[in-house]
Amino acid sequence: MNLIDKINRLKTLKSDLYKKDFLLTWEKSYDDLEMIIEVADILKDLRDHNISPKVFASGLAVSIFRDNSTRTRFSYASAANLLGLEVQDMDEQKSQVAHGETVRETANMISFLTDMIGIRDDMYLGEGNKYMREVAEALDEGFKEGVLPQRPGIVNLQCDMDHPTQSMADLLHLKKEFGSLENLKGKKLVMSWAYSPSYGKPLSVPQGIIALLTRYGMDIELAHPEGYELIPEIVEIAKKNAEASGGSFKINHSMKEAVKDADIVYPKSWAPFHIMQQRTELLKKADKAGLDALEKTCLAENAKFKDWEYDDEKMKLSKNGKALYMHCLPADITGVSCKEGEVAAGTFEQFRIKTYHEAGFKPYIIAAMMFTNQFKNPAKTLKKIFKKQKKRKGI
Amino acid sequence: MNLIDKINRLKTLKSDLYKKDFLLTWEKSYDDLEMIIEVADILKDLRDHNISPKVFASGLAVSIFRDNSTRTRFSYASAANLLGLEVQDMDEQKSQVAHGETVRETANMISFLTDMIGIRDDMYLGEGNKYMREVAEALDEGFKEGVLPQRPGIVNLQCDMDHPTQSMADLLHLKKEFGSLENLKGKKLVMSWAYSPSYGKPLSVPQGIIALLTRYGMDIELAHPEGYELIPEIVEIAKKNAEASGGSFKINHSMKEAVKDADIVYPKSWAPFHIMQQRTELLKKADKAGLDALEKTCLAENAKFKDWEYDDEKMKLSKNGKALYMHCLPADITGVSCKEGEVAAGTFEQFRIKTYHEAGFKPYIIAAMMFTNQFKNPAKTLKKIFKKQKKRKGI
Amino acid sequence: MNLIDKINRLKTLKSDLYKKDFLLTWEKSYDDLEMIIEVADILKDLRDHNISPKVFASGLAVSIFRDNSTRTRFSYASAANLLGLEVQDMDEQKSQVAHGETVRETANMISFLTDMIGIRDDMYLGEGNKYMREVAEALDEGFKEGVLPQRPGIVNLQCDMDHPTQSMADLLHLKKEFGSLENLKGKKLVMSWAYSPSYGKPLSVPQGIIALLTRYGMDIELAHPEGYELIPEIVEIAKKNAEASGGSFKINHSMKEAVKDADIVYPKSWAPFHIMQQRTELLKKADKAGLDALEKTCLAENAKFKDWEYDDEKMKLSKNGKALYMHCLPADITGVSCKEGEVAAGTFEQFRIKTYHEAGFKPYIIAAMMFTNQFKNPAKTLKKIFKKQKKRKGI
Repeated sequence: MNLIDKINRLKTLKSDLYKKDFLLTWEKSYDDLEMIIEVADILKDLRDHNISPKVFASGLAVSIFRDNSTRTRFSYASAANLLGLEVQDMDEQKSQVAHGETVRETANMISFLTDMIGIRDDMYLGEGNKYMREVAEALDEGFKEGVLPQRPGIVNLQCDMDHPTQSMADLLHLKKEFGSLENLKGKKLVMSWAYSPSYGKPLSVPQGIIALLTRYGMDIELAHPEGYELIPEIVEIAKKNAEASGGSFKINHSMKEAVKDADIVYPKSWAPFHIMQQRTELLKKADKAGLDALEKTCLAENAKFKDWEYDDEKMKLSKNGKALYMHCLPADITGVSCKEGEVAAGTFEQFRIKTYHEAGFKPYIIAAMMFTNQFKNPAKTLKKIFKKQKKRKGI
Repeated sequence: MNLIDKINRLKTLKSDLYKKDFLLTWEKSYDDLEMIIEVADILKDLRDHNISPKVFASGLAVSIFRDNSTRTRFSYASAANLLGLEVQDMDEQKSQVAHGETVRETANMISFLTDMIGIRDDMYLGEGNKYMREVAEALDEGFKEGVLPQRPGIVNLQCDMDHPTQSMADLLHLKKEFGSLENLKGKKLVMSWAYSPSYGKPLSVPQGIIALLTRYGMDIELAHPEGYELIPEIVEIAKKNAEASGGSFKINHSMKEAVKDADIVYPKSWAPFHIMQQRTELLKKADKAGLDALEKTCLAENAKFKDWEYDDEKMKLSKNGKALYMHCLPADITGVSCKEGEVAAGTFEQFRIKTYHEAGFKPYIIAAMMFTNQFKNPAKTLKKIFKKQKKRKGI
Repeated sequence: MNLIDKINRLKTLKSDLYKKDFLLTWEKSYDDLEMIIEVADILKDLRDHNISPKVFASGLAVSIFRDNSTRTRFSYASAANLLGLEVQDMDEQKSQVAHGETVRETANMISFLTDMIGIRDDMYLGEGNKYMREVAEALDEGFKEGVLPQRPGIVNLQCDMDHPTQSMADLLHLKKEFGSLENLKGKKLVMSWAYSPSYGKPLSVPQGIIALLTRYGMDIELAHPEGYELIPEIVEIAKKNAEASGGSFKINHSMKEAVKDADIVYPKSWAPFHIMQQRTELLKKADKAGLDALEKTCLAENAKFKDWEYDDEKMKLSKNGKALYMHCLPADITGVSCKEGEVAAGTFEQFRIKTYHEAGFKPYIIAAMMFTNQFKNPAKTLKKIFKKQKKRKGI
């Protein structure tokens, strides 16, 4: 399909993204989600054709990262830059956040000339998404009271509940791999826990995956050892989504069994829900000894499940022995990044480039979230961009 | 007044800001100051009307922060971005400043393609403003010798003597609140010390306020416990300004008495001048034990003045019981950001949004300082911007 | 020569810089090198005439600094900004590089919308340049596999072997000082070790200088105390270059003798090659005690050569007693930045402004490396820029 046709197709979507924050995929309609992945795809096409989709002459895109990150940080910076916004990091070391400022005040102080705010806050269970909503409320008030000339949009760059820029990039990747969203119907995807020598990895990726992909009529199987549960409310959402979409959702306690006949496997470590709850309490109390003890216990527990490594043997059990392997990266690769990990080196290598492609959609997903937040009629604005044919590179 | 009228009014001002650093308000003429606040107001209007005042296709705005900061950092970044400059932090951790480089050399090394430099250096009494002038001299030499194709302008983002981007934002805020600069005549403003559980807060805000606002015929009352003096030379400037402008300047040793019939109150903690002198010596010697001892003494001394909290009871004594409350933020709010602080929570809450508005002028004040430093005829350039009607957002 | 003539002259050069990384000057042809300095000169002229050479509407210039830096960091940022790219630091503290990610993966993850990558990695002998080539290979693969829509170019911002942005800036400086590259023929340049109270300074500057300038028919004398050798392979390259260019290359073990009749002197400290080898091993093992012991030994050894200070007495021995003094800055200046150092204060002062000019070429050299990497026909693109006459500053 050519670019103009792609743009015109957007008009059939009834999305409601304008001036709405993107915090959880399950708060968004099908048309919202489709709008995001289609706009992402079009923005990528435009750039690939050396057409600049720059829509801001100035403006800040603030990033608040409460956890380290390479890929999300660069994805966010790339997205902002593509549209003409300049990233300004709200670094807690550089700023006074830690010194008793209220979220309410800070949210306004950083937003006078800000169009978008990206937040990553995935350390504390029950906190990350809540924090984003606190910021949102503060911005609502600031805008209502005339403090802010615009209400900056918020993009969730990963919280305790969801990781929508990841899951949406994954969705676009699947669309590309299988040809269309319709083609995802009836496909079996296994979101599986996998062994890792580290503990305390966030739950947001598996939660984001099961809550989003159950909406597309897929057969989703969540596999993990007993005790490695996700947040129950989100598992509930996945179940309901599957029912409504004509797909299915199952929980399995064996990676080996789960991957049978799978079209897609997503093996990734995470910490059990109840451990994350304990960890959150200890982090809040800054209980170093308690955290160390918890880590020791957890690592010992994890060590019982070293066979939860995805390898060629398990891959052979999948559909035609070649299920699509997915990962949000970086993966814990046995013998490469760790002694024993989530995936065997040879297995990973077969899909390494595919995982790079998967990751490559993220900047455009974020750009699409910004674009749809900022422009009421994305099709119209994209058409203007196309007509203007402003070169991204060159003169 | 519409935008074009506002721009035309600038022509009546005889300012001398072009290629001059903005280091201290008391080095500037009335027309200089009015030019800054009017240009700030116009830049805000332009942006609010979605007209981009971008006047640089490229160029750096270097920031040198020798103290933490959220709001000034974001204000500076927003101002630079609005005009088309990219902020480059001169982070002393990242750079080699600490390793024996002379100011003279570094000032040139960071300025080859730099248009503006913003400096915050408020830790050492007798040092911050001096440092800015050292940088200025180095830049003068570099430009004269053909090392630099342009002489970057310097904006004082807070020093030991003045905080002009704050006091000028405050002035614009007052102009908006009272309708005009003329209306400030005869208004009573109390710049009062207030209790805070921390010690060693800079003197630059109260000094900046009394030195600037005494120029507008206001009745300024500086209130603080005995012993909490500001730099005597600056108090002297305030006195002379008041005399010349037909206003008045008084010192009072009771917050309660001072606020009587006040139109405006600005309650804010600071460290006594003589303590800051001792602190500066100890900081220079890196005398940790000495600093700890000094802090202990000071906090004990401060604790005698916990009743220097601005609350509803004191507000009742002000003009009509509703003096405008001002603060540079963040305030130490009793029961919110600390146990006992500068202001009662309920009192602050009544003016919280107003303090946000107050802070919201700072990015535009900085942008105006940059703009008038860089363009000889601001009215002419602003008119071109207006005529061009380049959208800030959109295509 | 006017700008258009300068641009037209580029057409006579047969350079092969398009889509090629700039890692070592000795991998580049004469025409390549001339193209870089000429484009640098033209970009500087354009900017000095207030013409913006912005050729990117968006795009990232990633910087990877594995060592502190002020001037190279600002030079890189200035170059990127001038052309329209936004710098995004790949800070190892902020990122997950240290946590087992492979170079291969990270190189792709930061490059989806990236046009240029600048790398500084000069700490480990045998590692820096190798690391750059690993990144290069990863980018080649990513581009070949369709992961990256473009292959970002790499600029070596200093490695263990070469410091091409420095040596090329030095070459342009020499061209300006002596009128033309041809005029460098027969000129004597002394690249001399000099005493410094620190140890472990990289070898890349002296290596870069002798390997580059021997190509221009100069008489290069490398002076250092016995035992302070550079990497033998690079000394070998310098010898061959001198032979081929009709110049000469000598090693001398006395600064005093070497500077006799010199046209140019470049006195600068470095660590001996064999010490750097030991240091690299200790750094890899993170052997703190071993590093401390090595430092102690080296400083004691260095202290034997405190007379390797360049001063007026030595300068008198040079051609007409006034050889051009060069330094990459910051210099260790006796009595200024240290007690005893590389150069006497009075001697340095006579050439201080010249060293600033020398440094001032670096941003444009980097911009030229970016420009020639990105545009196949630099003359054509520069002509378009000239014709467009887009103002850098103003409206």
